[in-house]
Amino acid sequence: MLTEELPFAAWMAGVQAEVEDALSDYLPPAHLVPHKLHEAMRYTVLGGGKRVRPLLVYASGALFGADPQALARAASALEMIHAYSLVHDDMPCMDDDELRRGKPTVHVAYDEATALLVGDALQAQAFQVLSGTDTLPPVRLIGMLRLLAEAAGSSGMCGGQAIDLDSVGLALSLEQLERMHQLKTGALLRASVLLGALCGKELNDAELESLKAYSKAVGLAFQVVDDVLDATADSATLGKTAGKDAADNKPTYVSILGLEESKALAQKLRRDAHDALAPFGEQALRLRELADLIVQRKA
Amino acid sequence: MLTEELPFAAWMAGVQAEVEDALSDYLPPAHLVPHKLHEAMRYTVLGGGKRVRPLLVYASGALFGADPQALARAASALEMIHAYSLVHDDMPCMDDDELRRGKPTVHVAYDEATALLVGDALQAQAFQVLSGTDTLPPVRLIGMLRLLAEAAGSSGMCGGQAIDLDSVGLALSLEQLERMHQLKTGALLRASVLLGALCGKELNDAELESLKAYSKAVGLAFQVVDDVLDATADSATLGKTAGKDAADNKPTYVSILGLEESKALAQKLRRDAHDALAPFGEQALRLRELADLIVQRKA
Repeated sequence: MLTEELPFAAWMAGVQAEVEDALSDYLPPAHLVPHKLHEAMRYTVLGGGKRVRPLLVYASGALFGADPQALARAASALEMIHAYSLVHDDMPCMDDDELRRGKPTVHVAYDEATALLVGDALQAQAFQVLSGTDTLPPVRLIGMLRLLAEAAGSSGMCGGQAIDLDSVGLALSLEQLERMHQLKTGALLRASVLLGALCGKELNDAELESLKAYSKAVGLAFQVVDDVLDATADSATLGKTAGKDAADNKPTYVSILGLEESKALAQKLRRDAHDALAPFGEQALRLRELADLIVQRKA
Repeated sequence: MLTEELPFAAWMAGVQAEVEDALSDYLPPAHLVPHKLHEAMRYTVLGGGKRVRPLLVYASGALFGADPQALARAASALEMIHAYSLVHDDMPCMDDDELRRGKPTVHVAYDEATALLVGDALQAQAFQVLSGTDTLPPVRLIGMLRLLAEAAGSSGMCGGQAIDLDSVGLALSLEQLERMHQLKTGALLRASVLLGALCGKELNDAELESLKAYSKAVGLAFQVVDDVLDATADSATLGKTAGKDAADNKPTYVSILGLEESKALAQKLRRDAHDALAPFGEQALRLRELADLIVQRKA
C-alpha cells in the first residue's frame, strides 16, 4: 500500500489537506442563506486545528483498506462534532475563552447567539455528512451513526463536560479524573478509531477490543499531555489561553500527580497504545505513529 | 383499523401518553452519571408540551399502517430536537425567556452551562434514538436520519433561527417572514409528517408532494396562529411569556397583516392543508383533524 511507505510527516500532511478539502465540501457554502451562520460555521471549522480525530480515522482506516469516501465523511463528521464542542465550551457561560486555534473564539468574532447556533448547526451537519455515505453496507452505516451519537451525547462527550462542570473546585481522585476525561475527550477519540476501522470492514470482537484498548490509552495520553502543556507552554504556542486550568481551579493530572509523574504517565500510556496494536502487526504503523505524535506534541 | 374509529380527542390523548412513555424510555435515566445533566434532560422533555410533532408523526404514520416501534422512535427523536431548540432559544443570549410550558426555563431552573449541555446532549440523543430503530429497511432508515439532520441543521431549523436573529428590528416582507418560518418551525414539522409516513413505507413522488404541500400549509398555519396567540392570549394560558414578539420588535404576521387578516390566513391555510390530503381519502382523517387542531388551538 503506497501510503504505508510515506514518512509519517508526509502522510499526516496529506491527510490534513484531504480533510481540509472534505470539510470545505461538506460544510454549507457561505453564499447560501443564512450567510452569517454559514460563514461562521466555516470560520469555526476550516483553516486550523491539529485534526487529531480525522488523523485517527485515516490511521485506523489504513488497517483495513477503508473506502476513501467513507473515510472523508467520517473524519469530517467527527471534526464537526469536535469543533462544535469547542465553540460551545468557549462561550461565556462555560469556559469563557477568547482565543482558540490562535483566532478569536466564535462568540468574540461574531456574537453569543451565533456561537450557540453554529454549534447546534455543526452537530446536525455532522450527522448529515455521515448519513450521506453511500459506499458502505447500510446496516454498518447505521451502526456508525449510532456510535457517533453515543460518543457525542450524555454518555460520551456531553456527559464528560457535565462532569467537568460539576468538578470545578472539587478534589477529584485520579480515578474520577480519568473517568471524566474518558467521556469528555476519550469518547470522541475512540469513536474516531472505531469509525475509521468500520469504513473498512465489520469488526470482530478481538479487533474491537484491541482498538478500544488503543483508544483508551491514546485518549488518556492526549489529556495528560494537554494538562502538561497547559501548565508549561505559553498561549502563543498553544493557540489558546495557557495556564487556564490552574486559574479556574480545575483538577488536572498535573495538580494531582505533579509534572514529572504526569510526563511519565504519558509515556506509559504511549507504550500501552503500542501494545494494544500488537495483533495488527505492521499494518498498524500509522496508529503507532499517531500515539507517538500525541504524546510528543508541543501544542 | 381501530385507531381510525376513535374520536380525535381520545386518539390524541392515546398518542400523547404513548409518546410520554417512549420519551421516558429513550431518555437516559436520572440515576445514571452525570445525574444533573440527565435530570435536566428529563425536566426539559417530559411532562409538558403539546407534542405537535409526535402527533404529526403518528397521524402521518396512520396513513400507511406504520410500524409502532419506528413511530415511537421517530416521534421521540423529533420531540428531542424540538425540546433542545427551545432550551437554547430561551437562553439569555437568545430570547432570554424565563417561562416555558408553564415551568421555569432550564437555565433558570439549573444554570446556563447546564442548559447549553442539555440542548447539545438532546440533539445527540435524538440521532441515537432514531438510529436504534431495527424494524425498518436499513436504506430507508438512513434516509430518515439524513432527513432529520437536514431539518435540524443550517438548511432547516438552525438556519431559520439565524434568519430570525438577523431580522430583529427589520421590516420584513410577507415573503421573507414566510421563508424564515418555513425553516425555523416548518422544517421540523415537515420532517415529522415525512418521517411518520416513512415509518410505513417508501414514498412515491405523488405521495411525497402531497405530504410536503400539507406540511407547508400546516407549518405556516402553526406560525400564524402562534403570532395571533402571542398578540391576544395571556402568559398563563400560553405557558410562556405573552406579547414578547411585539416587545422584542420582532416582525410577525400580526404586525405585517393585522389581527383579522392573520386569522383569515390561518383559515385559508387550514383549507390548503385539507386540499393537499385529498388523494389519501378517508385514511388522512388524523392529519385533517390535526390541521384543524393547529388552527383552532388556544395556546
